[in-house]
Amino acid sequence: MEHRALDLSLDAARLTAQLVDFPSVSGDEQALADAIEQALRALPHLTVDRDGDAVVARTNLGRAERVVLAGHIDTVPIADNVPSRLDADGVLWGCGTSDMKSGVAVQLRVAATVPAPNRDLTFVFYDHEEVAAELNGLKRLVERHPQWLAADFAVLLEPTDAKIEGGCQGTLRVRVETTGRRAHSARSWLGENAIHKAAPILDRLAGYLPRQVDIDGLRYREGLNAVRIDGGHATNVIPDFCAVTVNFRFAPDRSEEAALAHVREVFDGFEVTLTDSAPGALPGLSHPAAAAFVAALGVEVAPKDAWTDVARFSALGVPAVNYGPGDPKLAHTREEHVAVDAVLTAEERLRAWLTA
Amino acid sequence: MEHRALDLSLDAARLTAQLVDFPSVSGDEQALADAIEQALRALPHLTVDRDGDAVVARTNLGRAERVVLAGHIDTVPIADNVPSRLDADGVLWGCGTSDMKSGVAVQLRVAATVPAPNRDLTFVFYDHEEVAAELNGLKRLVERHPQWLAADFAVLLEPTDAKIEGGCQGTLRVRVETTGRRAHSARSWLGENAIHKAAPILDRLAGYLPRQVDIDGLRYREGLNAVRIDGGHATNVIPDFCAVTVNFRFAPDRSEEAALAHVREVFDGFEVTLTDSAPGALPGLSHPAAAAFVAALGVEVAPKDAWTDVARFSALGVPAVNYGPGDPKLAHTREEHVAVDAVLTAEERLRAWLTA
Repeated sequence: MEHRALDLSLDAARLTAQLVDFPSVSGDEQALADAIEQALRALPHLTVDRDGDAVVARTNLGRAERVVLAGHIDTVPIADNVPSRLDADGVLWGCGTSDMKSGVAVQLRVAATVPAPNRDLTFVFYDHEEVAAELNGLKRLVERHPQWLAADFAVLLEPTDAKIEGGCQGTLRVRVETTGRRAHSARSWLGENAIHKAAPILDRLAGYLPRQVDIDGLRYREGLNAVRIDGGHATNVIPDFCAVTVNFRFAPDRSEEAALAHVREVFDGFEVTLTDSAPGALPGLSHPAAAAFVAALGVEVAPKDAWTDVARFSALGVPAVNYGPGDPKLAHTREEHVAVDAVLTAEERLRAWLTA
Repeated sequence: MEHRALDLSLDAARLTAQLVDFPSVSGDEQALADAIEQALRALPHLTVDRDGDAVVARTNLGRAERVVLAGHIDTVPIADNVPSRLDADGVLWGCGTSDMKSGVAVQLRVAATVPAPNRDLTFVFYDHEEVAAELNGLKRLVERHPQWLAADFAVLLEPTDAKIEGGCQGTLRVRVETTGRRAHSARSWLGENAIHKAAPILDRLAGYLPRQVDIDGLRYREGLNAVRIDGGHATNVIPDFCAVTVNFRFAPDRSEEAALAHVREVFDGFEVTLTDSAPGALPGLSHPAAAAFVAALGVEVAPKDAWTDVARFSALGVPAVNYGPGDPKLAHTREEHVAVDAVLTAEERLRAWLTA
């Protein structure tokens, strides 16, 4: 795939196609980060910083308020869906169309076309969002350069189907493990089968009834799921280990600690090891900056059924919402796509809000 | 390791040490096969054939009965246990001491020291027993040279702890699979978790009561075990597949077909795919040649709790048993060893039977 310069004179939909055709699976974002940095440095009204494969650009107009527009530039692994394809119905197909190169395209278009916004703007483009939390580029920026993220309000352009989504779920992963004793499978009574011992783990998962909870008028749905299972050595050996990786997505009224305690309770009697965890964020829609954004856009407000980096801004004391043209239900699917109209509408709405 | 000529004037225990010090991991048997062929060709009372790294030698005395003495010359990978070591208690340590260079040494000693046995003898030394069944040297001989194996009775000198072991278990493996629908784990209600759907597979395995069955006075124990489980893609994706590999070791009163039908019944409602299968062998101890052997040796008779090449002779219509000086529980272990006394006793017992 050739790595050409980005053309910010294209509208956000065409720019989305260019971004999709520029693969940037987590861990392989450098070329795209270089292209974004190069395109932003060409804009005289912005100052640009770089950390790893994260790029941060800002206006310095001395406005009363500063707003962050943020998005991650990585995608999940490509699934035969690159390059992008525009169909006759005005739908653009491909890896990242929804999650979230359409959002990144909107950020880049606002950066290029709104040199004098009514609020100072900080554009954050970051790496490693689709993988383990400890690699997350925004987490790294929070630790190394928190001043780059200082703002009154933040919008993450994660896919929301053009709704405003307040707050987000928390997420944590644990390994639930069993051990046994190896033996030749011809003399299985000399061993102890660790895979068989995992049966109650799967039973509890299959029988789990996830909670739904209302916060600030928004309904959050939880989920507790095995996302991986591994056990066994050779096909003639009774296995002495089995590990189930479980992902708990929890409503923002639970802290990470409370969520982990709940998971430990579900798997009582098994060895449970936390592998990673990130807090949720309460909707925060009553904050003045968030309320002003909601009023200006006049779109539907909904809860976020996923962990997003909104929670990192939340933890820095910056109220934050998600608003992006992609469809969250299509994220990480082979059939990922976005409507050109939705991308153009998002671009227009943000421009209108920032130039009113 | 130097490859010296084998010295068949050594007793079977010393010869075992010489064979252990002559590494022959599966796939690397050629030098040892050469040495065995050379040693046997030096014996004027034998005719010798060779196929790949299998060597077959026979007497041609026109006796009323012909007996096969068979053994594989390969070992599992060496585990820091070569060269061999004889300790002060008369125990010989090293890779293959039990499985089954002590048995091969007994074969070679009988070949060298019993020029006029009371039954015609066929000595079979073969390769690739410790690896996938399709590579097995005895399987190759059955296909290419079945006439080399023609006999009234066969003894495999596999380790049996000096018991006679009649017949062997059959073995088959299946994959039991579930499918589901991928979705982001933050919106798990849009997906269908294939790992959760595998819960009843593990429940049925954990609750399975293996049969024990008496045949010809020998008790066979079956076993149905998961030997591997795999499912899931990424840690934020609801998995759309899960596969459990199950190994069924079955008593020789079930055919392969009946065994598979039983497994399909256990996993009724799931997709079951056969991956490999080998028949068991009935003990055949009521056959006159087998009964004579049992009577002559006067040792304990027990069932074989593993698949062995006895089943290949059984399928050719040659009743066969296992009888060897090694200890089957030590096979494939780093601590593999054999008592010198046990090797010498096996040598003497076979010689006595064949010269009575």
